[in-house]
Amino acid sequence: MILPIFFFISSLLISTSFGAVQDFCVADLSGPQSPAGFSCKNPAKVTENDFAFYLGKAGNTSNLIKAAVTPAFAAQFPGVNGLGISMARLDLAAGGVVPMHTHPGGSEVLVVVEGVICAGFISSANTVYLKTLYKGDIMVFPQGLLHFQVNSGKSFATAFVSFSSSTPGLQILDFALFANDLPSDLIEKTTFLDDAQVKKLKAVLGGTG
Amino acid sequence: MILPIFFFISSLLISTSFGAVQDFCVADLSGPQSPAGFSCKNPAKVTENDFAFYLGKAGNTSNLIKAAVTPAFAAQFPGVNGLGISMARLDLAAGGVVPMHTHPGGSEVLVVVEGVICAGFISSANTVYLKTLYKGDIMVFPQGLLHFQVNSGKSFATAFVSFSSSTPGLQILDFALFANDLPSDLIEKTTFLDDAQVKKLKAVLGGTG
Amino acid sequence: MILPIFFFISSLLISTSFGAVQDFCVADLSGPQSPAGFSCKNPAKVTENDFAFYLGKAGNTSNLIKAAVTPAFAAQFPGVNGLGISMARLDLAAGGVVPMHTHPGGSEVLVVVEGVICAGFISSANTVYLKTLYKGDIMVFPQGLLHFQVNSGKSFATAFVSFSSSTPGLQILDFALFANDLPSDLIEKTTFLDDAQVKKLKAVLGGTG
Amino acid sequence: MILPIFFFISSLLISTSFGAVQDFCVADLSGPQSPAGFSCKNPAKVTENDFAFYLGKAGNTSNLIKAAVTPAFAAQFPGVNGLGISMARLDLAAGGVVPMHTHPGGSEVLVVVEGVICAGFISSANTVYLKTLYKGDIMVFPQGLLHFQVNSGKSFATAFVSFSSSTPGLQILDFALFANDLPSDLIEKTTFLDDAQVKKLKAVLGGTG
Amino acid sequence: MILPIFFFISSLLISTSFGAVQDFCVADLSGPQSPAGFSCKNPAKVTENDFAFYLGKAGNTSNLIKAAVTPAFAAQFPGVNGLGISMARLDLAAGGVVPMHTHPGGSEVLVVVEGVICAGFISSANTVYLKTLYKGDIMVFPQGLLHFQVNSGKSFATAFVSFSSSTPGLQILDFALFANDLPSDLIEKTTFLDDAQVKKLKAVLGGTG
Amino acid sequence: MILPIFFFISSLLISTSFGAVQDFCVADLSGPQSPAGFSCKNPAKVTENDFAFYLGKAGNTSNLIKAAVTPAFAAQFPGVNGLGISMARLDLAAGGVVPMHTHPGGSEVLVVVEGVICAGFISSANTVYLKTLYKGDIMVFPQGLLHFQVNSGKSFATAFVSFSSSTPGLQILDFALFANDLPSDLIEKTTFLDDAQVKKLKAVLGGTG
Repeated sequence: MILPIFFFISSLLISTSFGAVQDFCVADLSGPQSPAGFSCKNPAKVTENDFAFYLGKAGNTSNLIKAAVTPAFAAQFPGVNGLGISMARLDLAAGGVVPMHTHPGGSEVLVVVEGVICAGFISSANTVYLKTLYKGDIMVFPQGLLHFQVNSGKSFATAFVSFSSSTPGLQILDFALFANDLPSDLIEKTTFLDDAQVKKLKAVLGGTG
Repeated sequence: MILPIFFFISSLLISTSFGAVQDFCVADLSGPQSPAGFSCKNPAKVTENDFAFYLGKAGNTSNLIKAAVTPAFAAQFPGVNGLGISMARLDLAAGGVVPMHTHPGGSEVLVVVEGVICAGFISSANTVYLKTLYKGDIMVFPQGLLHFQVNSGKSFATAFVSFSSSTPGLQILDFALFANDLPSDLIEKTTFLDDAQVKKLKAVLGGTG
Repeated sequence: MILPIFFFISSLLISTSFGAVQDFCVADLSGPQSPAGFSCKNPAKVTENDFAFYLGKAGNTSNLIKAAVTPAFAAQFPGVNGLGISMARLDLAAGGVVPMHTHPGGSEVLVVVEGVICAGFISSANTVYLKTLYKGDIMVFPQGLLHFQVNSGKSFATAFVSFSSSTPGLQILDFALFANDLPSDLIEKTTFLDDAQVKKLKAVLGGTG
Repeated sequence: MILPIFFFISSLLISTSFGAVQDFCVADLSGPQSPAGFSCKNPAKVTENDFAFYLGKAGNTSNLIKAAVTPAFAAQFPGVNGLGISMARLDLAAGGVVPMHTHPGGSEVLVVVEGVICAGFISSANTVYLKTLYKGDIMVFPQGLLHFQVNSGKSFATAFVSFSSSTPGLQILDFALFANDLPSDLIEKTTFLDDAQVKKLKAVLGGTG
Repeated sequence: MILPIFFFISSLLISTSFGAVQDFCVADLSGPQSPAGFSCKNPAKVTENDFAFYLGKAGNTSNLIKAAVTPAFAAQFPGVNGLGISMARLDLAAGGVVPMHTHPGGSEVLVVVEGVICAGFISSANTVYLKTLYKGDIMVFPQGLLHFQVNSGKSFATAFVSFSSSTPGLQILDFALFANDLPSDLIEKTTFLDDAQVKKLKAVLGGTG
Repeated sequence: MILPIFFFISSLLISTSFGAVQDFCVADLSGPQSPAGFSCKNPAKVTENDFAFYLGKAGNTSNLIKAAVTPAFAAQFPGVNGLGISMARLDLAAGGVVPMHTHPGGSEVLVVVEGVICAGFISSANTVYLKTLYKGDIMVFPQGLLHFQVNSGKSFATAFVSFSSSTPGLQILDFALFANDLPSDLIEKTTFLDDAQVKKLKAVLGGTG
């Protein structure tokens, strides 16, 4: 009595062949890139695994800053390409610090899942917004502003952060200033830092010039 | 007396060679896709026919729903690629129904050109906005919300719909639920539908699992 | 046996009170405007009529151009405010013309529902894309480019047009040049038109200066 | 020796008075709304607390679906207004279900922090993408597509979700269909569901008509 | 005492390999184009020269309009691709004119660096906004509206203009109307210009038809 | 013979009354703000002066950095509100420096009109892009990245800069770190700077804590 409507389906959904840009654009890291992101993987080859990623393992915090950032941006997690969202995991051992940094391309929200984190950002008006965050607290960091996270407890701390872009970028202040060949005199002129300070940090971070 | 200014033209408009992204980006369905849409066809090969499409023929309504949707999205109508707009034609025989569906990527406006259509959408607040539309009536369906169109007259009805995206997408509720391999128990858990109901519709729509 | 889940609904959907910006923003023409559009009407006062509009009546074509444009932009049709889409109706008596014009804020698609229309647009590269359109033909006009529609048949013609903005704007070339106080010598210098031509059209269109 | 440069600061940063739209726009829920979001609170009255919110407490899962969604959208968490991001917390008791739903205005990423969750979404092409997610797994759900989350373990499960909008919206399928006055015959025509099924669910969810 | 944190840097910044879309997308003019712009050049081959361009030389004003426009759009200046900005240089000899034109894809700001320029634009409401600009004056021309610049002094004038798009486009009214094969009768019907006027300008500008 | 078409004009352009959002949205600094910018001034009260601004006067460079930045953002120059563009003037006396800074909300292009400027920016990959710019040279600084400008000649230097936003923001590194109450120990932990260095700069810049 009830007839199949397969004809309807097939005629209607012709637009869902590989000819169509729809729903998602899983990143094909080997294709050309555009200002809007990576090329799209052939939808016929997309599987559920393209939309999932594992952030369950703490990053290696055995380093100077006792911290690790594990990104799940489009380059690591192709499923978010073009969707205006991405994530990362922050791990901070006792005393750990995610140094002063910005995300040029997006805003961030952070949720603490373990430990205590002191986080802050600074506005264009030079106002500091500083909070001590406990498990379950979330905080938002508006796009492009300098911010940081510090483990302010005595034990390990972990947070997940999300971004309003699949390629938010990450510019860490000290690496931008001291981990390249930006000449010391230019750094000094443009930051008012002393020559000794600049050279000390260049030595630590591998900078030249 | 009046001198040609061809030199001016040619020097000024050097940017309109194939090197330039300007005005339009007619879809090259064979090129790589990006989150912003299809690759652009070489402008030198673009003709007026790339910007026109025919929606003058009623779709085949000899099916269970007595309705047909004929899309003119970027995949069918390459001229709209990247321009933030597209169209489709709806045909509804007497008793015809465009089932409950959403367009994940855009808002829709509909204009009735023949017959009587009862159309409605449901907001996130679960409010129903329902109208009986006659020839010349238009109605807007905000992005991503469930909506439908039903022939509420006694004769054939036709409408043209436009979208705020060249790739608005189309997700028909019943096909999403019952025309694939989504396991019946998951459907039942997440929709509160009875097992018999789910299996009946899977049988009609070709679903498995 | 099955318990009401109203508690779930009410707690979950607290965000759909007037505190929320969701789904739609029906224009409140009396409120302040922002670069994104009109203020939003209180959702509690929104009805289905805010989402519908009537374009079923031909505009008055008893004028010099034998044509009429009836807009359903956000200012006339508040339901489209902020949704990135709007419509208008074109009526062209025999010999009617929609003069050369642009929409500064959006692309346009046109569908002919009666008669024969010759439509065209000109690209930044000065290429003309010209089509004679019959009932059921659609054509797209990329954002911001000069275009026009002419009744090229012997009888009345009607078309519906849609835009990729709820406030696409409309700049008609002749009114921009000749229906205001732009000084004739500036018009002549910047358009290369003869003084007599400029003054003739100023007289027709009510321009001064 | 080093002179204060306060003059430089004060002249340069005049733009950071309340006259400026910069950095952020904390929602003033009592002001007019625009298509871009809520009005901005006077920056002089903004404090760090506007940028923080608490999602540390499990929602009440003593309901039919044994689940709770606690939103931190702009209406609850004013600091995210206009920043293109927001969050929510999902709690699922054993057997709990977040029913089939969409977010009309944004994509979602989910991170499991406790328990086991089976999550899935369905594309416009009716393909099902289904994953069982354990602690630390993340999954992305593209904008506007039907999706769901089910506790597929034996114990409590919790996840944090983030959205690519500060007002992503939330349309739960069953509430949209059965918790309002959408007439049963229209539901049946547009969903192919049986009359008994529709009436049963209307009774549970408080629908009329 | 202070240990290198190179491990941190290298693990964190893996996303900055060629796999990543970040910071910028210098145009690769030989790659496929998308609606969002040109393909991205391999970041490893990008140098400081990709981000700089020379606009220090006056264009050749020995032409009918005694003016020259030198564009630094993405096609000429690949560094701006996808960044939503571009520039051009205007040179106007005494008596020079940048004829009536539009930029379909962006707004413009102009700064006078030499001479006196009379500039104006016309709104959709047909209002003329006209200013005489001296050295150091800036003026903004909203997207898509007809505007022009005339040397209103006795000596050479130069201005730099910037656009809110890396591919703003440029449609010069007279070239759009008279420098192609748009039939004279269509021009006349859609502009109300006299036949003699149209033919005269077609002759000057190389138009046919 | 030729009849007035005023009826056509007046009926067509009803949408250009104060009810319409079109063409532009000159900032009303006293109205509510939205995430999209300032409220719009009543178009009937807008004049040509709203679209013009004066950047012809050098800022006061008698300060520590021997530099001045004169902004023409939406707060100073209401005509650019919502148009995605704005400007500023840079003046650098001999030895002058625009210190390391970012614009969180937009990309920048700079054109040198006098003198010699050494400018540079640093990417997320910590690569330095450094150029010495002479009169007529332009350079682009991608959104959100640290950059600076230094007078590298012996005489005064002036540049005009444009932004891809009407409210690009401006965060000067030293002011963000040292001109507020951000505690010294937090600065030291998150920047690796020595305590003496931090305190020295706090003293210069008026910071406390």
